[in-house]
Amino acid sequence: MHLSTVETVLEYDVKAPTHFCFNLEAAHWPTQKIASERLAVSSGVAVHSFTDPGSGNRFFRFDASPGPLLVDYKADVEVYSEHVDDLPEVPVSQVPDEIFHYLMPTRYCESDVMGSVAQQMFGNEAPGISRVRKIANWIHDSIEYRPGSSTSTTTAQEVFVQRAGVCRDFAHLGITLCRAINIPARLVVGYVWFDEPPQDFHAIFEAWIGGRWVLFDPTGMAPVDRLVRIGTGRDAKDVAFSTFFGAVEMTRKEVSVLEHDPRGRAPSGKPSVVLAAAGA
Amino acid sequence: MHLSTVETVLEYDVKAPTHFCFNLEAAHWPTQKIASERLAVSSGVAVHSFTDPGSGNRFFRFDASPGPLLVDYKADVEVYSEHVDDLPEVPVSQVPDEIFHYLMPTRYCESDVMGSVAQQMFGNEAPGISRVRKIANWIHDSIEYRPGSSTSTTTAQEVFVQRAGVCRDFAHLGITLCRAINIPARLVVGYVWFDEPPQDFHAIFEAWIGGRWVLFDPTGMAPVDRLVRIGTGRDAKDVAFSTFFGAVEMTRKEVSVLEHDPRGRAPSGKPSVVLAAAGA
Amino acid sequence: MHLSTVETVLEYDVKAPTHFCFNLEAAHWPTQKIASERLAVSSGVAVHSFTDPGSGNRFFRFDASPGPLLVDYKADVEVYSEHVDDLPEVPVSQVPDEIFHYLMPTRYCESDVMGSVAQQMFGNEAPGISRVRKIANWIHDSIEYRPGSSTSTTTAQEVFVQRAGVCRDFAHLGITLCRAINIPARLVVGYVWFDEPPQDFHAIFEAWIGGRWVLFDPTGMAPVDRLVRIGTGRDAKDVAFSTFFGAVEMTRKEVSVLEHDPRGRAPSGKPSVVLAAAGA
Amino acid sequence: MHLSTVETVLEYDVKAPTHFCFNLEAAHWPTQKIASERLAVSSGVAVHSFTDPGSGNRFFRFDASPGPLLVDYKADVEVYSEHVDDLPEVPVSQVPDEIFHYLMPTRYCESDVMGSVAQQMFGNEAPGISRVRKIANWIHDSIEYRPGSSTSTTTAQEVFVQRAGVCRDFAHLGITLCRAINIPARLVVGYVWFDEPPQDFHAIFEAWIGGRWVLFDPTGMAPVDRLVRIGTGRDAKDVAFSTFFGAVEMTRKEVSVLEHDPRGRAPSGKPSVVLAAAGA
Repeated sequence: MHLSTVETVLEYDVKAPTHFCFNLEAAHWPTQKIASERLAVSSGVAVHSFTDPGSGNRFFRFDASPGPLLVDYKADVEVYSEHVDDLPEVPVSQVPDEIFHYLMPTRYCESDVMGSVAQQMFGNEAPGISRVRKIANWIHDSIEYRPGSSTSTTTAQEVFVQRAGVCRDFAHLGITLCRAINIPARLVVGYVWFDEPPQDFHAIFEAWIGGRWVLFDPTGMAPVDRLVRIGTGRDAKDVAFSTFFGAVEMTRKEVSVLEHDPRGRAPSGKPSVVLAAAGA
Repeated sequence: MHLSTVETVLEYDVKAPTHFCFNLEAAHWPTQKIASERLAVSSGVAVHSFTDPGSGNRFFRFDASPGPLLVDYKADVEVYSEHVDDLPEVPVSQVPDEIFHYLMPTRYCESDVMGSVAQQMFGNEAPGISRVRKIANWIHDSIEYRPGSSTSTTTAQEVFVQRAGVCRDFAHLGITLCRAINIPARLVVGYVWFDEPPQDFHAIFEAWIGGRWVLFDPTGMAPVDRLVRIGTGRDAKDVAFSTFFGAVEMTRKEVSVLEHDPRGRAPSGKPSVVLAAAGA
Repeated sequence: MHLSTVETVLEYDVKAPTHFCFNLEAAHWPTQKIASERLAVSSGVAVHSFTDPGSGNRFFRFDASPGPLLVDYKADVEVYSEHVDDLPEVPVSQVPDEIFHYLMPTRYCESDVMGSVAQQMFGNEAPGISRVRKIANWIHDSIEYRPGSSTSTTTAQEVFVQRAGVCRDFAHLGITLCRAINIPARLVVGYVWFDEPPQDFHAIFEAWIGGRWVLFDPTGMAPVDRLVRIGTGRDAKDVAFSTFFGAVEMTRKEVSVLEHDPRGRAPSGKPSVVLAAAGA
Repeated sequence: MHLSTVETVLEYDVKAPTHFCFNLEAAHWPTQKIASERLAVSSGVAVHSFTDPGSGNRFFRFDASPGPLLVDYKADVEVYSEHVDDLPEVPVSQVPDEIFHYLMPTRYCESDVMGSVAQQMFGNEAPGISRVRKIANWIHDSIEYRPGSSTSTTTAQEVFVQRAGVCRDFAHLGITLCRAINIPARLVVGYVWFDEPPQDFHAIFEAWIGGRWVLFDPTGMAPVDRLVRIGTGRDAKDVAFSTFFGAVEMTRKEVSVLEHDPRGRAPSGKPSVVLAAAGA
């Protein structure tokens, strides 16, 4: 078990009446337990919360008037991970009904045009978790992590051609290649501690292998077994941390992740926690 | 009320073990009542049926061995339509939580890149059902209905540029323009009688207006109030009539729609039904 | 030396006054000699011919009135080929000024977005003709030749993703990968005899290697040393066999290639010529 | 006549042996006279200059070794402009052979997919210079000038959808819409004084109207009759101010344009020149 304290602080300058929808809160999920949490929004704002029954994502929405706006979410979350060794693939005929749609193409994951190339590249690999690991490794080795090389509308197909992207692009490509060879796959975003600042939300993917969802991080930047899950979705449009309708300027964005010592106490001689405050 | 008898006959030459998933059955929906129906699949096939709880779409799946395969669905469906006159738009802040995601871009509906153009074209129109009608009319007047001009991977953005497509492209563009100006919208496919053969599945769209879903057909080819709904989805990938994993050749596809006289009896002098058999 | 008799017969139904521009005639080129040729166009049409000084392509243009139109070009062409063994690449700094622009991206050859992937795939191969052969072989092995999989606006980037195309798509991808690793490359279209009918125009590419242009055919469908060159261009838009401005329907298209016995006489026992008449 | 002093200062940190090709020099063109000019490149570099016979563009190329590199071009150029009032369009059948290819699609100007939309929007306008003015005005009114909204690989089609771009995108869209309705068009880049700094190269387009090329600036940012022409091309790839093969970092880029008083002397009371120094 890993205990993390995660926090997101967002400040906005709202210029016109604006409707916001956020997906920042740690998910209630079998692999994690929210020990404590609090959400603070500027006073006078009526916050409406709901959980999407399909994905389990927790959203909160509100209307904001012009002026400064603060959103601050903080939680202590225990993450439980299982060791996953070898797992077989599930034949498509045995994919459960409710998982089936994760085989379909989505906005940023055009598995419908990448069937041949995925088959060429990974069709002859032995089915099983090792095949998805090969996909993740190939992405890690072939796609350059380069901030600024993609935008919020960049798709897996474009990333495959340009060979550059950021974490969500890496995850989208992994999802696309999996779906294209008939392995259900979806996006996961969450909090995870990076060796190198700045801290930020992270995007990885999970594939349906051996009757369960297994996480993969093609960026190799963070240990997937310590990720505090926020959202799960078909692709990035389902798990945007913030969606707004109106006119706003984001003036501050700080994501911090504090990983507590797994044994629950500070070892002598060095601090048991590492604090990383993200830049805007 | 309109009573229709609808039927789809599909024949395949299955070349290798194949898993099929179909979405052919009339939906259980407030606006229609299935008076009777039957589904026939080649003997020896174990059919598994399920209804997607999110969309209400009815799917059936099965594994097929090499050889000929027949799927035949037939139903009598009563369609009830309400006259819709004037309806206001729902401010995005009042869009219900479970409808909210229909504002997001999807595989074939890139509303995330068409925000400016949609705003330019329809942003100054008075909000309400008339604005969506203007969108549908603009599509009707500006996009050429031309079979062969698009493929199964064509997107709304491409249709907007090339100004040609088929019914699903018209619907995708309507959905995209609606979402881009913050009106939830989604795809509807179903059975409807066309004046000119061949009969085939039809795709239209519906927008969330005045607290309810309202149907629009930018092709103008069919009366929306008589459509027997099969599927409802974010876009075409959610409502494919057939998805398969394996190797097959479709050897026959016949869609027929028989509109019974709305008064329930044959007028003297001419037959009360119109039969249209679709070509392959 | 190979002697070929080539012919293109085109018939159109001109529906409105139309301006035509054709590029059908064998080029005057160091590697081929036009022994005889004739061009026939429906009577009453004033044909204007010109040769583009940059490419050497021969065009003819005319205005046609409504009614039937016939264009028939026939030529006997001697093709001289040199055996090309090993050739080094030319460093980009030594690429002649007039060849330099063949390093740039064009409409169907987006070498500007494929630099990284081309470098990844072929950047570590030893420079020289063998590297271009590896590109051509990779295309041959990885892209499926599938009529109908592409359109007249399909680009190399799309072919790279979808892994299917026809001869012009194969050539465009070869050109793009060459340019992306700084080897000048361009499209060549011409007449060549195919083992399997129908005969048609063929598209291949040539790369600037060892101070000369060398032909490559990634489809492997035809012997490049026997191609009767019609046109040379940056990509397909420069060498369309026919461009028209108006309203026409093509009612007949026959391309035929007759390869005479290289020794100039009929061997005993079998005919010295092979005739292949192309379908529409 | 307008007399301008133009200057470009470029500094690079060359990290590995690199081949450069620049297109910075004012063109020798009927509408302008280079009164004086000088080109300075870091010592020890052997510069090779040439003029492309097709476009008239002046290029200089050289190899650079690792270390700092300076390129400084300065010229006094007299620009002569004619007043253009009304001009008819040239029917495509009368477009001269050497102009004909400016009707074709190019890398960033996909007129082949925008034929229908261009015809819809401008097909019913009276032919002539006023129709091209309508195209330029429509772009001005419909496309937002927004630095950062496009990249070096953005095409006209994308600009048409996203409704945002910079000067080259505006020009590409103008070219594309013209070609799509059979008006030859091409890109022009040059030096022109902007009211608002920073100064930079400017891109506009010219269309073949009334038997001559006429300049249009859909950004409306600069008077076209005072532009000092550097390059003329099918689209941006033909007129990049700098192309390099190697590894470099640009450390300084200053473009300055000094418009001398057209009467050739300083009016009393205020300076006769306006100096604008461009930022990096």
